[in-house]
Amino acid sequence: MHKHLSRRSFLGLGSGAGGFVLGSVAAAGPKTLLSRSAEPPAFPWPYREVDPAAVRNRAYISFDKGGCMFGVFEGIAASVADKLGNPYTNFPFALSSYGGGGIASWGSLCGTCNGAAMAISLFHTGEERTRLTQQIFAWYEENKLPTYVPAASSRVKSGFEMAASRPDSVLCHVSISRWTGVSGFASYSPERLERCARLVADVAGFAAELLNKSFRKEPLAGARIGEVAAGCLSCHAQGRQAPGEPETVSRMTCTTCHEDAHHQDKK
Amino acid sequence: MHKHLSRRSFLGLGSGAGGFVLGSVAAAGPKTLLSRSAEPPAFPWPYREVDPAAVRNRAYISFDKGGCMFGVFEGIAASVADKLGNPYTNFPFALSSYGGGGIASWGSLCGTCNGAAMAISLFHTGEERTRLTQQIFAWYEENKLPTYVPAASSRVKSGFEMAASRPDSVLCHVSISRWTGVSGFASYSPERLERCARLVADVAGFAAELLNKSFRKEPLAGARIGEVAAGCLSCHAQGRQAPGEPETVSRMTCTTCHEDAHHQDKK
Repeated sequence: MHKHLSRRSFLGLGSGAGGFVLGSVAAAGPKTLLSRSAEPPAFPWPYREVDPAAVRNRAYISFDKGGCMFGVFEGIAASVADKLGNPYTNFPFALSSYGGGGIASWGSLCGTCNGAAMAISLFHTGEERTRLTQQIFAWYEENKLPTYVPAASSRVKSGFEMAASRPDSVLCHVSISRWTGVSGFASYSPERLERCARLVADVAGFAAELLNKSFRKEPLAGARIGEVAAGCLSCHAQGRQAPGEPETVSRMTCTTCHEDAHHQDKK
Repeated sequence: MHKHLSRRSFLGLGSGAGGFVLGSVAAAGPKTLLSRSAEPPAFPWPYREVDPAAVRNRAYISFDKGGCMFGVFEGIAASVADKLGNPYTNFPFALSSYGGGGIASWGSLCGTCNGAAMAISLFHTGEERTRLTQQIFAWYEENKLPTYVPAASSRVKSGFEMAASRPDSVLCHVSISRWTGVSGFASYSPERLERCARLVADVAGFAAELLNKSFRKEPLAGARIGEVAAGCLSCHAQGRQAPGEPETVSRMTCTTCHEDAHHQDKK
């Protein structure tokens, strides 16, 4: 699954882009240079609007360099860094490459969701971070994906009809199983890899749209919790549970795993 | 759940430690200064051995500053950064603070697992990264946690008997439910927060032990997949599935959610 990740691609990332412009500061004195260049980037980073279509294209290509989490994170963060310049362009974006295959083939959290959450966390803290992340997770679970169509693909022929499926979960192995069930392709097929590459583009583009809206202070209309979880949590959230019913700390689509939860309770 | 996370604690992190030593380089010419100070940290970072007991103590305290993912990530990464000095100490460790509550209260991946995976990814790529991460995830799912006992706690009285539970999953809401089931405490109780703080210490310390062993090139004895998943994957992994049986891309403990998977298939 990760054979396309070379060590070189990890090490080389970000080292060339946005290099320090020697000429423009060479006339300044040592102290000015020192304070300017030694200063770490601000955190959270300031945001700059990015073109969601360009982010989708970049993320799709970045998937091949570092997997799904990297594709989303680098697609967004490096696009903003290109506008901010040094030292932001020197950030080790490849740190985010650990999330492919639901982290170390564990099949847990989908790397696109992990990468989007990490990217949002570069620019936001507190409630706005939570709000944006929840909108992405709810959208991811409930929409038929992928929708992105690349200009060209190395894995499928031109005109390939990509199946779209509702992930029903932010978990990698569930999301993949939903797609293989709809498409009929195997988990390790080139077609499934292509599906994940396009999913990377979708999630990165959607996250960029939300970040742009947040930057412009436009209202965000999306849901912050899925329909299923909203229903279940009406009885199972903190302080709301009926006597003997469990309280849960989750917004995941409950019925994906707890298919028949109440009937099992009654056995 | 995250009321203890102040904006100040995010913004202030890392900005003071390991400041650039003005005196030692002030005598050098502008060009030397420029190339030295503008140089970004290497990636992956070089590793330095850390004391697992000290990492546990640090991670336990860092939980209060940025949540569970931050606690583990900062506990490990900032401990190594302190040995490496500037510019490593300027890394925005608070970027990892997005993973609490299974990310934005979604209850998905436990932040301690996400934080450990992110920390390992600072130092390793490829197969060694995968190997170390899988050992942590398998250990997390199958062991009764927490085991760490702090010198002092702001949430529970001295002598408090902390219940330990087997998470059975790397998912936040499952891990918490297992513990509330065993302990009898509510999900949002101070006792549960204390449990997660101690879990942060456990995971950070275990990860530090593995990183130290890897650095010393000592053999790593731990499992890379749990017992349950190993059994299920003997039929459901790539190229091994029986006709009509699904292929899965997961190493999570299957039976936590697929309790009666084969019986459901037969309905």
